[in-house]
This record gives sequence, structure tokens and C-alpha cells, in this order.
Amino acid sequence: MTDFTPYQELRERFREIALVGGASSLLSWDQDTYMPPKAAPFRADQLACLSGWRHRLAVAPEVNDWIKACEDHGYPAGSKEAANTREWRRDYDREAKLPQALVEDFERTSSLARMAWVDAREKSEFPIFEPHLVKLLALTREKANHWGYEESIYDALLEGYEPGARASQVRALFAELRPAVVAIVGPAAERGARTPGNLLSGDYPIAGQQAFNREVADAIGFDFEAGRIDTTAHPFCASPGLRDTRLTTRYDRNDFSISLYGVLHEAGHGLYDQGLPEGDFGAPAGEAVSLGIHESQSRLWENKVGCAPAFWEHWLPAAARHLPDLTRFSPAEITAALNRVSPSFIRVEADEVTYDLHIILRFELELRLLEGDLAIADLPGAWNEEFEKMFGLRVPDDARGCLQDIHWSLGIFGYFPTYTLGNLNSAQLFAAARKQVAGLDAQLAQGTYSGLLDWLRANVHAHGRCLRPQELMQRATGEPTRISRHVEYLREKLGPR
Amino acid sequence: MTDFTPYQELRERFREIALVGGASSLLSWDQDTYMPPKAAPFRADQLACLSGWRHRLAVAPEVNDWIKACEDHGYPAGSKEAANTREWRRDYDREAKLPQALVEDFERTSSLARMAWVDAREKSEFPIFEPHLVKLLALTREKANHWGYEESIYDALLEGYEPGARASQVRALFAELRPAVVAIVGPAAERGARTPGNLLSGDYPIAGQQAFNREVADAIGFDFEAGRIDTTAHPFCASPGLRDTRLTTRYDRNDFSISLYGVLHEAGHGLYDQGLPEGDFGAPAGEAVSLGIHESQSRLWENKVGCAPAFWEHWLPAAARHLPDLTRFSPAEITAALNRVSPSFIRVEADEVTYDLHIILRFELELRLLEGDLAIADLPGAWNEEFEKMFGLRVPDDARGCLQDIHWSLGIFGYFPTYTLGNLNSAQLFAAARKQVAGLDAQLAQGTYSGLLDWLRANVHAHGRCLRPQELMQRATGEPTRISRHVEYLREKLGPR
Repeated sequence: MTDFTPYQELRERFREIALVGGASSLLSWDQDTYMPPKAAPFRADQLACLSGWRHRLAVAPEVNDWIKACEDHGYPAGSKEAANTREWRRDYDREAKLPQALVEDFERTSSLARMAWVDAREKSEFPIFEPHLVKLLALTREKANHWGYEESIYDALLEGYEPGARASQVRALFAELRPAVVAIVGPAAERGARTPGNLLSGDYPIAGQQAFNREVADAIGFDFEAGRIDTTAHPFCASPGLRDTRLTTRYDRNDFSISLYGVLHEAGHGLYDQGLPEGDFGAPAGEAVSLGIHESQSRLWENKVGCAPAFWEHWLPAAARHLPDLTRFSPAEITAALNRVSPSFIRVEADEVTYDLHIILRFELELRLLEGDLAIADLPGAWNEEFEKMFGLRVPDDARGCLQDIHWSLGIFGYFPTYTLGNLNSAQLFAAARKQVAGLDAQLAQGTYSGLLDWLRANVHAHGRCLRPQELMQRATGEPTRISRHVEYLREKLGPR
Repeated sequence: MTDFTPYQELRERFREIALVGGASSLLSWDQDTYMPPKAAPFRADQLACLSGWRHRLAVAPEVNDWIKACEDHGYPAGSKEAANTREWRRDYDREAKLPQALVEDFERTSSLARMAWVDAREKSEFPIFEPHLVKLLALTREKANHWGYEESIYDALLEGYEPGARASQVRALFAELRPAVVAIVGPAAERGARTPGNLLSGDYPIAGQQAFNREVADAIGFDFEAGRIDTTAHPFCASPGLRDTRLTTRYDRNDFSISLYGVLHEAGHGLYDQGLPEGDFGAPAGEAVSLGIHESQSRLWENKVGCAPAFWEHWLPAAARHLPDLTRFSPAEITAALNRVSPSFIRVEADEVTYDLHIILRFELELRLLEGDLAIADLPGAWNEEFEKMFGLRVPDDARGCLQDIHWSLGIFGYFPTYTLGNLNSAQLFAAARKQVAGLDAQLAQGTYSGLLDWLRANVHAHGRCLRPQELMQRATGEPTRISRHVEYLREKLGPR
């Protein structure tokens, strides 16, 4: 650890920012879980106030001076201090470009928009949400213009979620991925159509689901002394502080898989957060590197682990203790039903093959919205038209169309591609772990997950932001993010037999 | 509304302080309800950070300038602006006397002490809590010395909870109250001893208790769109924001009355918070005036309303729907059992007569601790000795002795007397309402509470801090706080028949 004063000042300052950021995170979590409805406007003001405070602390002139001093100090390349300095510089330059009023306006607007979205989605009435989205998109474009970009306005936003990635690269990856996926969807969906879609439908009491989900999350290594699970409309994972990681999921009494795979997905995120180096809390070295890497963790536990035949061979007896209606099935039947490919409306419930098509749709619509080729008023129409082209299905209402995701209601644009990057990274990391961890398949078959978690801790979590996302992928897997392992994985699991 | 700029600046500044204060309040609420245990140290830092920020905002030199300008501006006596100015001055002079480091140290210490107290109380091991309490008492004395006082160091603390009250006045009131109470306890306890203490003991499923408590809280006017009820070790009421008031209670499956009267008590606090003028939020005119008045509201709903014969005559059928085991009883049996007088160890479960003896005990011990006549190490012994003198009972363990209350673990000294002031005020206000609201007894017999609530809204809640506590009592009841209505009420309800 360095004693250099400006470095220590930065550590201290960003610890304070993390304290305030954690308070904001808890206020948001509470807004989605327990807050009484009439409290919404005040909560919006509160979040704006904390966000403004965080911004002021982060862009204060002394922060720039301290970073400059660390740069001049010249930490050795590859050291943690050099990585922290590099990331502080990147964040400062980004954050300092936003006027404080814009930051606060954005926070207030998105907090109200989120409540309107909940209402609009419940009633499937886009017009309730529309004026909020118009304002959020305008503020988002304003932000992007402050940040600046070389090729596309989209890049300015994408950079915030996936450092170093560009819309043109995403477009190229997606252009390669789309036909590969479509080639798998066709025959897989045809096979899927021969299995009833509601095969697993039954009576699964919520308390039983909760108990089983908790048992599984505990088994894969989620620390419940430092975390919890609650219920929300849209599952998420939030870490409002050190040793405090909160998952949420939603429940359907007739379909246990919605809550279980919500938990497995969010626990994947949660394990990453719980695995970040505690001693670096508040500094870049203690933070997650990108959403494409974060999502690789959630998809890995949700799909590569949770939807594999070995998972249900191990877990069915335990699951049936909590959910007796499962005794009707064999492990193979459950796995087959879970992996059934069938084009459908809701992204978060999509099968692994069509999932990326949902993302490609959103990416293209976002690009058009941001580049000014599509008006918000035309969004539902454009969504439905594109969806039908891609999936061959007519969207019945906006709740199952452009209102289904929370992201835009939070003013989050440029985020969706990271889901597919996460899928690609996930397949690539899982393939690498299977090569490097001796006996991994046998461990997973026994419900032993520590070998896999240790490998992820060492190769992903422990790095924080010290490696850039593509450096991390290169070191851990021997190549940058590509589509090949993902497509191989899908073919092996779901392709023609 | 005045346009005077310094006044507007103050309104704006204290709204910001209320936003941050609300965030602290939510973090504390979460700490007691849902926070994972390992998050405690970080949460302590977080609360210290927010507390420091609030303090900086409140004592900034410009705040003093603005208040000075308002004072010079000379708002007419009796106006809201004059009241706000007067209270801002009082708060500023108090707050500015505390060094920031002390404020943060106190917040951090009390946050950790609270966790230690939970543990100590569970295990009934005072030594777990002792070092925390030593530190907290030292910091409390330090605070009191910064604030200053004329007669007793106790006054400096009491002023924070009951503006204008002095230890000497409390001592005088208590000297008058103690023999009056003792005279009632004797015969009432003798009669109580002839009824079995566990008469109401039965099987009351938690879900049924929750449903019934909610129905009652709703009926007395608690707004669940702007509030909620959760579960904690020690019941409390917190308002982390505008239109956001949260009650907590605790459950015993064999005794429904613990959770129900916890809810009625906290809902009394909650109704006060929900009744404060919204337009004045953040300013003194929108805040509760004192704890003695706050507690009058909780005791009024808990005891004067909830423990009256009329309450159970109305509510028993509804209660029995949720809690079938109650069908064994008549309303009169339930009321008699609830009002059974019997000296016991736990303050929050004490009957209405002995309750004030619990407070007198704590007041006297606090005085001795603060005035340096008692060491923390000797506290359990002193407690047990005094308790035996007062109640004729030997304290079996510290969990039922000096560890039972959360207050000291939060560094709250000088607060306990406000409970008895609350009892006195409560009886006095209820007597006034019965005189002034035509047909009030008949309304209460029908389970109609709006007449009483409206009277409290107009005579207590609506004033915020515009009237001082004793002005408020004088206007609403025609006299300052005295013991007579309380003693009359106890005699009428529990005295010899």
C-alpha cells in the first residue's frame, strides 16, 4: 500500500462517495421493495439530492489535482495503484463533463419515470409512460453530447456500461451472431413445439419456492450473512454497502422456475459483488469491471450451471421436499422443459437461444432512438413490427412489448448489448473453467460448486477494475470476447441431435 | 408565505437537511428490519457520514446569517414565520455548539453500541454492552457540556427532547406522582392477583395478529398508502420522508396483545407524523414539538382508546375472525385482563399504573449516572436494588433489568421522563377532547375514530412546533402539564370499586 498523500486522499474521498452511493442504492432498493406508494415524490427528491452530493464530491477540483499528482508520481505499470489512477482519471473525465443540474434533473426524472412505468406496465398503457420517456431520452442525449463520441452517440452511453466497447463492434458481433442463432432456433423450436410449453406447470407454494431458492443460493456460495432475497416486479441485485448484497426475484405459484432462475441469475451477480476485494472497497480495484463481465457471472450460474442436466439430477430430491408437485417429473424431463426453445414475448423468460434476438431488437431500436431515426411516440409500433419480423409473433399488448423492461424507465440506454456480451463471455469463461479446473464436471454433478466459484473468484472477481474487460477475457480464456464458444455451447445443448 | 430571501434560503436549506435526515432514518430503519448482519460496520460509517453532512449543512455560517436577517426582519409575533425563526435560532445555537468530530464519533459509537446491545440483551450479558455504554456516556457528557446548563447536566439533555423542561420540574412532578401512583398500585395489584396473569394466553397465529393489527390501525386513521408495519425486537415509529411513516412491532404467538398494543402505540406516533402540516415539511412548523407531546399521542391511542371497555365491545368479533382463539372470552374479560395491574419487569409490557414507576426508576438512575454518582459497572446492581425497593421484585437477569430498553444503546439519555410526561399529557388531552367533541364516547363505542383524530389534528398535530409544548397544552386543555387528570383517570379506571 502506498503512503503517497494524494493517493490516500483519493482513497478516502472515494470511500466517502461509496458511503453516499450505498445510501442511494438502499433508497432505490427500498423504493422497489417496501416503500409506501405516496412516498414516491419525496424519494425522488431524496435520490436527486444524494446523487448531486456524490457528483459534487467526485468532480471537486482537488480530485483532479490528486489524480494529476498520482499520474506524475508514476506508479509502475501493472500495479494496483496504476490501475486505480487510470480508472479514477477515466471516471473523473466522464463525470466532470456533466453539469450538476443535469445530474439532479436526470435522477429526479428517472425516479418518477420508474413509478410511471410500473403503473403503465400494469395497465399495459404506453401513454402513461410516454411523456416520462420523452424527457428521459432528451436528458440522455444531453448527457451523451456532454461526454462526446467519435462514431455514434450510442458509444458515449455504451462506454458507461462496457468500457472500451463501441456500437460498431457490437453491430459486427451481432451481425455474425444473428444468423448463427437463427440457424439453431429453427430446428430447436420445431422440436420444442412437440413438448407442451406448460409441462412443468403445477402448484408450487411460494413459501416452498422461497425455501428451495435459498437452499440453492446458499449452496452455490451466496453469503446470507452478507445478503438477502426480497420480492420485486423485476428481479435485480443491489449492493448498498460492504458485505450487503441484496437479490430480488418474483414469484408465480404455478411456475417455480421464474423465481428460481431469477435467484440463480441475481445470485450470479451477487457472488461477483461478494467476491470483490474488500480491502479495496470504494476504489476501482474493489469495483466490478463492466456489465458484460457482470452479466457473464449471472448467466453462468443461471444457464451453464442451473439449466444443465447435472443440476436437476442433483437437486430434484431437495426441490421435491419443498415443492412436492415436482415429484411427477424425472430430472431429464425438467431439464428438457427448462431448455425448451420457443419464441416468446418476454426477454427475462426467454430461452437461451432466442434471448439474444431480444437483445438485438432492443439494440437496434435504441440506436434508432438515439440517432434520431425513431420518435418515442412510434416506439410501440416499431417494436411490434420488428418483433414480428424477428420472431414471427404478433405482440398482443405493450406490457408484453416495449413496456416489459425496467431499463428505459431508469434512463438506461446503451445497456442492453451487455446482456449478449454477458452470454458470450459466460460461455467462454465456463469453457475455460472446465479446461482448467480438474474434475469440474464431476463436482457440479455432486452439487459441489466451490471449485467453480474459486476459479471465478481468482480469474474474474479478484481483479476488480484492475484489468480492462477485454484484458480480463484474454487472460482468463486466451481470447477476447467472440461468438464461437457461445454458439458451440448452444449447438451442443440445443442443436440438432 | 413570505418572499424574504433569507427566509426562503432557510426553508430550502432545511428541506435539504430533511432529505438527508430521511436517508439516515431509512438506513436506521433498515438496520433494525432487513439489513444482513455483516453489513453493520459499514452501516455505522454510513450513518456517521450522513450525520456529519447534516451537521455541516445546519451549522454553516450562512445559516446563522439568514436567521439573524429573519430576526432583524421582525416577523409579527404569533406568525408562522416568527415561530420558524425562533426555532431555527434555538436549533442552530444548540447544534453549532457541537464539534463535527464529536457528532460523527457519537453516531458511529451508537450504531455499533446498538448491535452490541441486541447481542447483550439476547444473551442477558451486560459485559458485552458495558464498554459501549461507557463510551456513549462519556460522549453524552461531552455533548451536554458543550450545550451548557444552569442547574443540572441533565437539563442540557432533557432540553433536546422536551424543550423548556428542567430536571428540577420533572423531579417535583415525579415527587407528587409517586405516592399517588403507589396508593393506586396497592389495592389494584391485590385485585389483579386474584385474576390469572395468563388469562388471555392462547394460540394466536402471527398472520392473524398481523391482519387484525392492520385492520385496527387502518380504522383509527393510519394511512397505509403512506406507511407500513414491520417486525423488530423493540417497536418504534420512524418517518424517513414525507408521506412515509413506518411502524414496527414484535410478535408472541401466545399473546396477541404484545403486537396489537405495540401497533396501537406506534400508530399513535405515526398519526402525529402523518398529521403534521405537509406544506411546512423540513421547517419547524412541520415538525413534532416534543417527545412529551409525541408520547401523549401514542399513549392516548394505546391506553385511553385501546384499553377501554368500549374498544373490545366493538372489536371482539373482528378480532375473533382473525384469531379464533379469542372466541373463548367476553369483551369485559379481555378488558379486565388487559388492565390487570401487576408489578413486572418489562417497561413496555407494564400496566398503566406501574408504568410510571418504571420511568421514575430510570430517571433517577440517569441522573446519578450523569451527575457522576453512579459508575456504569455498578448500573446493573443499582438497577436491581432500586427495582426491588420500588416493585418488591427481584430482577432475575439483566435482560429483564437494565438491558431491556434500547435507549441507552443509542446514546439517548434524558429521554425517559418524556414517557411519563406523555402519560400526563395524554390523560389531559383525552379529558379535553371528551369535553369538546360532542358524542365522542358514543363514537368510540361504534369504532368511529375520526372525531377524536380530527380534534387531535386541530389541537396538536397542526401546530407543528409553532407553539411551545406547554403553550400547546395550555391552549388545548386550559392548563399546563399536571398530574391530576392522569391520577383521576387511573383512579376511575383502576382504583377501588
